[in-house]
Amino acid sequence: MKFFDDIEIGQRREIGSYTFTAEAIKNFAAKFDPQRFHLDEEEGKNSLFGGLAASGWHVGSACMSLLVADGRRLAHEATSRGEEVAVWGPSPGFRDLRWIRPVLAGDTVSYVNVVVDKRVSGSRPGWGILAARTTGTNQRGEEVYSITASAFVPMRTKGG
Amino acid sequence: MKFFDDIEIGQRREIGSYTFTAEAIKNFAAKFDPQRFHLDEEEGKNSLFGGLAASGWHVGSACMSLLVADGRRLAHEATSRGEEVAVWGPSPGFRDLRWIRPVLAGDTVSYVNVVVDKRVSGSRPGWGILAARTTGTNQRGEEVYSITASAFVPMRTKGG
Repeated sequence: MKFFDDIEIGQRREIGSYTFTAEAIKNFAAKFDPQRFHLDEEEGKNSLFGGLAASGWHVGSACMSLLVADGRRLAHEATSRGEEVAVWGPSPGFRDLRWIRPVLAGDTVSYVNVVVDKRVSGSRPGWGILAARTTGTNQRGEEVYSITASAFVPMRTKGG
Repeated sequence: MKFFDDIEIGQRREIGSYTFTAEAIKNFAAKFDPQRFHLDEEEGKNSLFGGLAASGWHVGSACMSLLVADGRRLAHEATSRGEEVAVWGPSPGFRDLRWIRPVLAGDTVSYVNVVVDKRVSGSRPGWGILAARTTGTNQRGEEVYSITASAFVPMRTKGG
């Protein structure tokens, strides 16, 4: 992961795709969101979604898993180049979480992350706060998901 | 579930509690948020969280599962009383999602739901849009989680 100093507003990363199979949709829903339109094809068809639809929490959690995997890839590549890797802190919050369109069984959602803001933390010396917007787009090019998240990102230690 | 007409701003429901065991925290994280402080006690202790911490998506998904279970209980009770049960539509979005404090292994979070707004839908005749804020509080009385969600809720059919 990058240091605060090395991140620029506007930076864009494709972080990967996730295919929402009927099985994955039902498994997630059975545990965390057992509403009928997330569990059964017919119920989904008869709902406002028009098909077996993934739980919004599934869409968000899948996005999170891709963000983490992408962060690992970046860290691995940086380490391979002999660069120091920053260890990011936790997220102090999300905003503007939007499920714009249903994600139906068989849909593949591609997620893209764009840095939208950065500022120095007032409460934690040596840390900055980064805001990035992640959007998910289905195989028809329709935006289905959007979230803006902030994260604590360390600054390079002076002389470190 | 209630009809739009029968819901009042300010209505408050205790929707249940969820205990975040170390095992549940690690299982969720392994699938959806495999960051070190969600997977390992020592790594958690050495992080800004100060202990093995649940993924925020786990905290939100657990809240969702309690909301659904509570909705079923309400529907079952209404049916038992011979009342008509409304079938709610999907949520058009969430806002103000906040993870206020870490949720650590062994914490029990109790969730409470309060109706904060209701309005008639402009786009879907016969439907209203309800906004409700759900907060999670740990066993020490500290608020750890908050989200405001909206939902499409049907109105009683005239003469139905």
